[in-house]
Amino acid sequence: MKFSEFGARFSGRSGTRDLMDDLGAVAREPSRWINLGGGNPSVIPAMKPLFDDALAAITSRGDWPALLGGYDSPQGYQPFIEALTDDLNRRSGWNLTPRHIMTTPGSQASFFMLFNLFGGYDPAGRLRRVLLPQSPEYIGYSQSGIAPGQLASCRSRIELVGERQFRYHIDFGALPLDDVAAICVSRPSNPTGKLASDEEMAQLYALARRLDVPIIVDSAYGLPFPGITFVPGTVVRDDNTVFCLSLSKLGLPGARTGIVIANPDIIDALTGMNAMLNLAPNPLGARIALALLQQHDLVALARERVLPHYVERSRLAQAIAERALAGLPWRIHASEGAIFLWLWFPGLPVSAEVLYERLKARGVLVIPGTYFAPGLPAPWPHLGECLRVSYAQPDAVLEAGFAAIAAEVGAAYRGG
Amino acid sequence: MKFSEFGARFSGRSGTRDLMDDLGAVAREPSRWINLGGGNPSVIPAMKPLFDDALAAITSRGDWPALLGGYDSPQGYQPFIEALTDDLNRRSGWNLTPRHIMTTPGSQASFFMLFNLFGGYDPAGRLRRVLLPQSPEYIGYSQSGIAPGQLASCRSRIELVGERQFRYHIDFGALPLDDVAAICVSRPSNPTGKLASDEEMAQLYALARRLDVPIIVDSAYGLPFPGITFVPGTVVRDDNTVFCLSLSKLGLPGARTGIVIANPDIIDALTGMNAMLNLAPNPLGARIALALLQQHDLVALARERVLPHYVERSRLAQAIAERALAGLPWRIHASEGAIFLWLWFPGLPVSAEVLYERLKARGVLVIPGTYFAPGLPAPWPHLGECLRVSYAQPDAVLEAGFAAIAAEVGAAYRGG
Repeated sequence: MKFSEFGARFSGRSGTRDLMDDLGAVAREPSRWINLGGGNPSVIPAMKPLFDDALAAITSRGDWPALLGGYDSPQGYQPFIEALTDDLNRRSGWNLTPRHIMTTPGSQASFFMLFNLFGGYDPAGRLRRVLLPQSPEYIGYSQSGIAPGQLASCRSRIELVGERQFRYHIDFGALPLDDVAAICVSRPSNPTGKLASDEEMAQLYALARRLDVPIIVDSAYGLPFPGITFVPGTVVRDDNTVFCLSLSKLGLPGARTGIVIANPDIIDALTGMNAMLNLAPNPLGARIALALLQQHDLVALARERVLPHYVERSRLAQAIAERALAGLPWRIHASEGAIFLWLWFPGLPVSAEVLYERLKARGVLVIPGTYFAPGLPAPWPHLGECLRVSYAQPDAVLEAGFAAIAAEVGAAYRGG
Repeated sequence: MKFSEFGARFSGRSGTRDLMDDLGAVAREPSRWINLGGGNPSVIPAMKPLFDDALAAITSRGDWPALLGGYDSPQGYQPFIEALTDDLNRRSGWNLTPRHIMTTPGSQASFFMLFNLFGGYDPAGRLRRVLLPQSPEYIGYSQSGIAPGQLASCRSRIELVGERQFRYHIDFGALPLDDVAAICVSRPSNPTGKLASDEEMAQLYALARRLDVPIIVDSAYGLPFPGITFVPGTVVRDDNTVFCLSLSKLGLPGARTGIVIANPDIIDALTGMNAMLNLAPNPLGARIALALLQQHDLVALARERVLPHYVERSRLAQAIAERALAGLPWRIHASEGAIFLWLWFPGLPVSAEVLYERLKARGVLVIPGTYFAPGLPAPWPHLGECLRVSYAQPDAVLEAGFAAIAAEVGAAYRGG
């Protein structure tokens, strides 16, 4: 088979693919795996009756033509877009019109469209790059640029916090600022759980203005919903910001529905791109979210039912980690949001990828830190000492998973 | 806003976007429009109870976590893939394994992935093209190539048939054969309704072998399902063919589920690409199709319930066209499959795009023929005399639509 350069690059093995293949393996044989790997959200008990009601509301017998029998416009289902506009204006004080919002087939598709709308070769043939000011950063960005070399990033600075924690800081002095086409940051960060501070965000907004490029804020786990943030942080929306939200972390990853909020020129451009790549987004996601919106308020739901669940899971996961890893050298990143612990084993004698394979052989899935390096010009050895561990799963899964991690990490430190 | 070259090209106005925007307008205000434009399939009465049952089977109260609470693997939902493998092997005599099949977020996404997996710049920097041997050809291919100039096509030959019909033939002597990366043909053709003959297909298969490139057969309307073909035609699958199917024209366009059948190397490459572009396909489509498959046989359903519906609609649409257009110069392409009539108004004094605008002003949506020219090196005036008209809608819609077409075409011929 002769593939194109793009084809060879996009079809090969990748961290994203390994992660999704692992999720597929879990879905096929759930009982075989302790899954701390992928981004599967919790089945949150307090959300369950709401989703059941919403699904029942849109799937009454005879309703399939409205649900599955037609295409939405490439911008999305207008009644949902209008209801979400109202909800966000009321709850977040944003000043949106329905022309500011669109839906996509999921956040991954949103990033592919955004990274290539702005980044890549410009009409004059010059390569312009998407700046990722944080590193480590989301695995899914890694191959979202059509052109090789389309992402640029630099290592964050590490601050040690107490005995067991640490925190990354954006290294503003070291950011690669040549030929920037857009800036993108996950907030809270996937994988680290860091919530970029209001000061960092203000600096990034100012930088974007100075470079005359948009700033993309990946809020897949953040505000205004699903709102999984454990420390104070302000969200500023203006005409230069692009917010990427999703229904996934409310508990609906299978709805495959991403939401982009930006100025109408960007939404119009993305809508054209969505038509050419996908014809139209998923009708189901917008309809189930509209049914939710008609009874509830997404921002309030996130704050009252989703956030407390993950606050508690983070606390529990840290307690479990502390017990399991006692006696080993380890640190975790300050847990400020999202659904992961980011573990660091300073001086680990084997690479995180070897650790991943050993854990997988025990039936435990995690993600090696090395995968979270989109845009870095050279490997960062520190990431080979890190693992991303989801705490969305039940306690027993966390207990078993951390016991296995402790055993393998312990063996590695002892030279095994 | 500074967009990349790709971004500017993919985000702009396009026939595909106009078409999808029109469908969105219809969805918002159905009563305002006579829609003969987009590819919305019929709500087929004989399929209705089946879809109702399938949807009910997968949406029992409490089932949302299985339906919407997780991610499938990027290849798709394994139980569906296995059931479809069995069904196709039994009914079509194909020799498939589950490694031959994957699902995507719809056929449009399938084509974007396939056209760019094979076509575009190769690792040595040489542009290799997707050959579209038929023209006119599907509007949705038009901007599926990431590189400019990535599609190549040539005008089909026109055979006049009787007083009122005509038929295109692939002009094998004129095909542009330089730097071909893959061949793609819609069968039956969207927009024309032509079913490429077994002889033409044999020649294309031989050409693909000779060029050592795969041949992509777009069966969105064809065999083995939805099987909307009105004349005999054999379907040959071998390791060099890529079949693109979809649930849409069975009646489930909102399921946004495309199906690709190809050799395992191609499926593996596309699976990697799907992970990077979309993480995973839609769970819903695979689950509703599996529920159908557990009670029925998709190939048999297509033949027994879908095909008779469209045979009758084609017959009716032709009768309505004949009455409405009496006295005007017009021809239609032989109606051999799919859900469209392809109308030709020889010598029409205004362009099809003007006709489209005038009809839209009357509330009637069609698609101008000029949009169906992917890969043609220069405009083909003949296409400016053609319209694609869907006959999926009810009789009253067709009657009103053709009355408007007759009025506008008549006015145009009279010099209006």
